[in-house]
Amino acid sequence: MTEPSYREMWENLNLDIEAHDGLLEVLGKFYGDIYMSQQGRLQGMEYLDFVLSEVHGLRVKELIDAKNAGRKIIGSFCVFVPEEITLALDAIQVGLCAGADAGTEAAETVVPRNTCALIKSFIGFKMARICPYTESCDLIIGETTCDGKKKAYEAFGEMAPMHVMEVPQRKEADDRVLWKAEVLRFKDKLEKLTGKKVSAAALKKGIKTVNDKRRALQRLNVLRAADPTPISGRDVLLINQISFYDDPVRFTQSINTLCDQIEERIDRNEGIAPAKTPRLMLAGCPMAVPNWKLPYIIESSGAVVVSEESCIGTRNTRDLVDESGETVDEMIDAICDRYMKIDCACFTPNNERMENIKKLAEETKVDGVIHYSLMFCQPYTHEAFKVEKTLTQAQVPMLSIETDYSMEDVEQLKTRVEAFVEMIS
Amino acid sequence: MTEPSYREMWENLNLDIEAHDGLLEVLGKFYGDIYMSQQGRLQGMEYLDFVLSEVHGLRVKELIDAKNAGRKIIGSFCVFVPEEITLALDAIQVGLCAGADAGTEAAETVVPRNTCALIKSFIGFKMARICPYTESCDLIIGETTCDGKKKAYEAFGEMAPMHVMEVPQRKEADDRVLWKAEVLRFKDKLEKLTGKKVSAAALKKGIKTVNDKRRALQRLNVLRAADPTPISGRDVLLINQISFYDDPVRFTQSINTLCDQIEERIDRNEGIAPAKTPRLMLAGCPMAVPNWKLPYIIESSGAVVVSEESCIGTRNTRDLVDESGETVDEMIDAICDRYMKIDCACFTPNNERMENIKKLAEETKVDGVIHYSLMFCQPYTHEAFKVEKTLTQAQVPMLSIETDYSMEDVEQLKTRVEAFVEMIS
Repeated sequence: MTEPSYREMWENLNLDIEAHDGLLEVLGKFYGDIYMSQQGRLQGMEYLDFVLSEVHGLRVKELIDAKNAGRKIIGSFCVFVPEEITLALDAIQVGLCAGADAGTEAAETVVPRNTCALIKSFIGFKMARICPYTESCDLIIGETTCDGKKKAYEAFGEMAPMHVMEVPQRKEADDRVLWKAEVLRFKDKLEKLTGKKVSAAALKKGIKTVNDKRRALQRLNVLRAADPTPISGRDVLLINQISFYDDPVRFTQSINTLCDQIEERIDRNEGIAPAKTPRLMLAGCPMAVPNWKLPYIIESSGAVVVSEESCIGTRNTRDLVDESGETVDEMIDAICDRYMKIDCACFTPNNERMENIKKLAEETKVDGVIHYSLMFCQPYTHEAFKVEKTLTQAQVPMLSIETDYSMEDVEQLKTRVEAFVEMIS
Repeated sequence: MTEPSYREMWENLNLDIEAHDGLLEVLGKFYGDIYMSQQGRLQGMEYLDFVLSEVHGLRVKELIDAKNAGRKIIGSFCVFVPEEITLALDAIQVGLCAGADAGTEAAETVVPRNTCALIKSFIGFKMARICPYTESCDLIIGETTCDGKKKAYEAFGEMAPMHVMEVPQRKEADDRVLWKAEVLRFKDKLEKLTGKKVSAAALKKGIKTVNDKRRALQRLNVLRAADPTPISGRDVLLINQISFYDDPVRFTQSINTLCDQIEERIDRNEGIAPAKTPRLMLAGCPMAVPNWKLPYIIESSGAVVVSEESCIGTRNTRDLVDESGETVDEMIDAICDRYMKIDCACFTPNNERMENIKKLAEETKVDGVIHYSLMFCQPYTHEAFKVEKTLTQAQVPMLSIETDYSMEDVEQLKTRVEAFVEMIS
């Protein structure tokens, strides 16, 4: 019965109410089909179901309440934006809508048609006025991780308050210098915005909070890979997706509670799928809410996803910030070091990613890998070739998928995935 | 009658002789149709015709002779590679084949299908073994100007000796620091390769030589824009293309001789096209030999190209290196400053390019601009939107073309160009 108050909130955010209603309807139906239809889900998932059902409601209300209390909302589309610093300034960092076809026609008036679905999506959501997160932001942080985003932020910057961080393209000493300068520029920008200064105590706490979130997700990543696998790949994807929206402390707590339940299930040797179900790893581009297409196809094709190598997966949680720093500068250095470990395809070379994929495939005992690239995403479509080479050497079969957010290729994808699953069974 | 000796040379370079013969045949026919068919060409173009006809013959022989004399050959695909330093080490810098569909099928086994034609071309030429320049190189210099090239160089680096320079993505103080480090790294690499050290005298001479080449092309760019225009856009494009292959001193001399002839023609008020022929600027992606498709279509549609804003155009010649430096470090700084002025779409923001285009449109009194992007080239397809906005404000009509190296869309392009020319006439 909270609906009416949300409506007023959405109106105050200047959302296109009718279009937004339509979006929520589709999202709800999609979620019902893909998530609620699952058998044997863990009780702890109820919390995630609740969060997702309130993703445009309660969580947005929290943000608005925080704004009214003087806190700032920082939006981002990328794991390179250091949440530790945002939290140290008592601001809130949220991921913005980028996972559905919305406003595509409008988006194509400002960026090329041959742009990946994720980029067209965040521009489309903005132009169609249907993302309450984007509309709540005091500042949106872009980054130069790919040509598509780098140039799209120029157009986006004409519609929303933006700050762009330069992510270097190599990982040498001079790149580390550039990256530190960019992290400090980000800190300065947020300090100006919030009217606060980053203190050592607050930054230490920020680092701890984000590390705790990563530790909970690391724990989940180990548990999910048990054999038989105790939780569906879809559910873990959802958890990773929600990690970008939810309050970090509350989220960490919930995930640890869920992990306790998973451990009990593992102790009982219970799985979410029958024994001998082929185990797959998903690798590649991030999947933003509600981009659940491929995991759903995979898990409806007789396989289960037991590990996910993407920004909305292990890439964002694998490395922690060293917690031993005491001064702000020491902690900033620790943050820089940690973020420069990210094995994004924007780096050249990016051999760490090959090593990390091989390692994750071994650790999670997968029967095969599905490499997922968004169409027109140059960094990941290029690296798909290298990943395949690496996995072939490790004798792990790989299927390379290139797709977008449309539903037109679902049948075709299903055929390819089924054939792959059959091959590795 | 030099043919047999070339054949031996090509065999020694391990070219696929049959495929290479086929390429030369197509190139010759194409050149005949597009260039030799022109009326009223300047006598000085004979030199260019000769150079082009010997592009895989005499010039390659010169390179091989230079190699045998102990000089090194440095290949590149980009105007960010500082030829001044190459020359200072008595090495030779050449542009590599990237302008024709060749070996595309092979290329698509190592880079995605949705890669621009230029990138697929340089990989295809390598895999098909038909570029004598690529095969002559002691070292090939890549750069991180776009995702496509950045990632393709990883694959290319497995086939040829490569060194990749990181081009920063912004133009702030920290980026200048990174770029200087990269220029010094390039210098170190070439010093190791050549076994020489860059001396102040040699670098001063290198700077002078490259500046003289730029000055000759600047002179040409002013003269070509006379009304009536004294030289076809195709011929000027060819000159710019050859500037990447030919010996710089000889080339500069020839272009200055040609400019003397153009001045005489201008004095006689003679043009290459009838008075009132619509004057166009080409802006956007570079056109490598033999990518003459669009200029030919334009100049067969009743218009003439009087200015070209691209890397194989004004972008490479607009700015000179300051010649006042006396020490190596002063000159390296001057080189860094000059290269950081390049208004490549890889930068964000890249507002200089908008200003430069507006200025060039005014200076060369164009009736319209054709913006040319290679399909899947994200930086330039994105900037096409900004260029159009800029030109609309300046009341200059613009047509945006996105194409590749195939001939399949020639009729369609012709229809669009003709309609545009008619509109602005």
